[in-house]
Amino acid sequence: MNTRLDCIPCFIRQAADAVRLSAPSEEDQNRLMRSVLQCLENIDLRLAPPAAAQMIHRRLRSLLPTGDPYRASKDRHNQLAAKLIPSIRRRIEASYDPLTMAVRYAITGNIIDLGAKSNVGFGDIYAELQSAPIQPIFGDLEAFKKSVARAKQILYLADNAGEIFFDRLLIEQLGSAKITLAVRGKPVINDATREDALASGMDEIALVIDNGSDAPGTILEDCSAEFRAHFDKADMIIAKGQGNYESLANEDRPIFFLFRTKCSVISRRSGYSIGTYVAFRGGASPRADC
Amino acid sequence: MNTRLDCIPCFIRQAADAVRLSAPSEEDQNRLMRSVLQCLENIDLRLAPPAAAQMIHRRLRSLLPTGDPYRASKDRHNQLAAKLIPSIRRRIEASYDPLTMAVRYAITGNIIDLGAKSNVGFGDIYAELQSAPIQPIFGDLEAFKKSVARAKQILYLADNAGEIFFDRLLIEQLGSAKITLAVRGKPVINDATREDALASGMDEIALVIDNGSDAPGTILEDCSAEFRAHFDKADMIIAKGQGNYESLANEDRPIFFLFRTKCSVISRRSGYSIGTYVAFRGGASPRADC
Repeated sequence: MNTRLDCIPCFIRQAADAVRLSAPSEEDQNRLMRSVLQCLENIDLRLAPPAAAQMIHRRLRSLLPTGDPYRASKDRHNQLAAKLIPSIRRRIEASYDPLTMAVRYAITGNIIDLGAKSNVGFGDIYAELQSAPIQPIFGDLEAFKKSVARAKQILYLADNAGEIFFDRLLIEQLGSAKITLAVRGKPVINDATREDALASGMDEIALVIDNGSDAPGTILEDCSAEFRAHFDKADMIIAKGQGNYESLANEDRPIFFLFRTKCSVISRRSGYSIGTYVAFRGGASPRADC
Repeated sequence: MNTRLDCIPCFIRQAADAVRLSAPSEEDQNRLMRSVLQCLENIDLRLAPPAAAQMIHRRLRSLLPTGDPYRASKDRHNQLAAKLIPSIRRRIEASYDPLTMAVRYAITGNIIDLGAKSNVGFGDIYAELQSAPIQPIFGDLEAFKKSVARAKQILYLADNAGEIFFDRLLIEQLGSAKITLAVRGKPVINDATREDALASGMDEIALVIDNGSDAPGTILEDCSAEFRAHFDKADMIIAKGQGNYESLANEDRPIFFLFRTKCSVISRRSGYSIGTYVAFRGGASPRADC
């Protein structure tokens, strides 16, 4: 999908966050923001939002003293998620339909998105967890479950650090299929990289790969040959988060998008209200299943 | 006060709103946004936010087919406010302390701010009106009331269209002081101009002037000599909205700022949480009065 006018303020907010995290002096912050604005001037709005964001964050990382301004945030979210996971796992295993419940919690984890919001505090996560067990999931949950039952090779595209611990709980419920988990190739915003996958212990239950790209989404032409091979051979792809949806919405593959809608652009494009839990197959029209 | 990094995404959102309201083709919208980004590149963050916004909206108006992209929104908000005002007036007049209640409703009206938010729907206004009568007012309400009782000449700086009808209800409660109401000199965002003051019937109860400026605030050096004379001679100034606060926060005059805090920048600067109703004197430290 194309970048929309409303994406631009969001890019600038992300840049302001990254600048604030890494450049203490006001003078440096202003210089860096000028550079981002200059970079945005040449933006091609026909690109998918993650491609535009990739351009901006590349520019920022080339100027910032650190190549990973969000590392401390990612560690904090991983540590919190690690503490929450055992009790959530018990709730999933005790539920009437563990797979559906695991989908729900995987989507709950998707609120840990510093691309859509400057801060996700522990209070936000606890509040979301309270309502998680009763959230309706819109889209094609039955088709998702049928696809899981049939799949032999599932490629799971992770989204953010912290959230990846919730993804692990869903992967534990995916049955006998062989799972490959893909993270971003390099740090961008708070998207999960190999370090976060290992922190969540994902390598114990899945083959962990990275996609070779530093976009906050999955821009296939920017991904490694190894990733593309996995993408082409999987008989089911589970893509978490808005960034993966923005970059893969038009792909003709058996992709299920799982996320919580967080902005008006995605709400309009997908047809689901802001705040909705969705699990739908690429190209499917919106409807409530569960 | 200076422009902060967090103001920049807000400027861009305002620009995207104005562009969308006036330029139907995607090509034109992209061209206009590029021009705004180019303009922002040279932004001086030592300016007050309304001065930076003035620069951007001037650029936009020079490129847009209309010099007043928000005119239709302003008319809609005026029409809604006109319908609401008779019943709110009755509630104010029937209350134990009409002046305090009128301050409350004047601050309620301050949610009609398209600088802080892209859309303010009728539902938002009705919802706010439900809670208005019990909103605590933080700041120096007692000092405000004492100042009103003593004042001979009050200069009232309006903020937005629609909101100006609520200001009228407060002005009706200001006792025997001579009131001058000032609006912006030219259209900018949905700020009230002379047209909106006349729509609210403000000329029946106050001397209506404009400040000669097209900034969404009160930048004194940009205002007309006539306005400056009123500003200098008033023994009380009531300044509505964040824009007037941003531009007059450091002025050594008997100014009372009345607004609803709507963003993190103003919340940090003023010391009041987002969503708070405030009425405080310039330079005063935050405390709850009522």
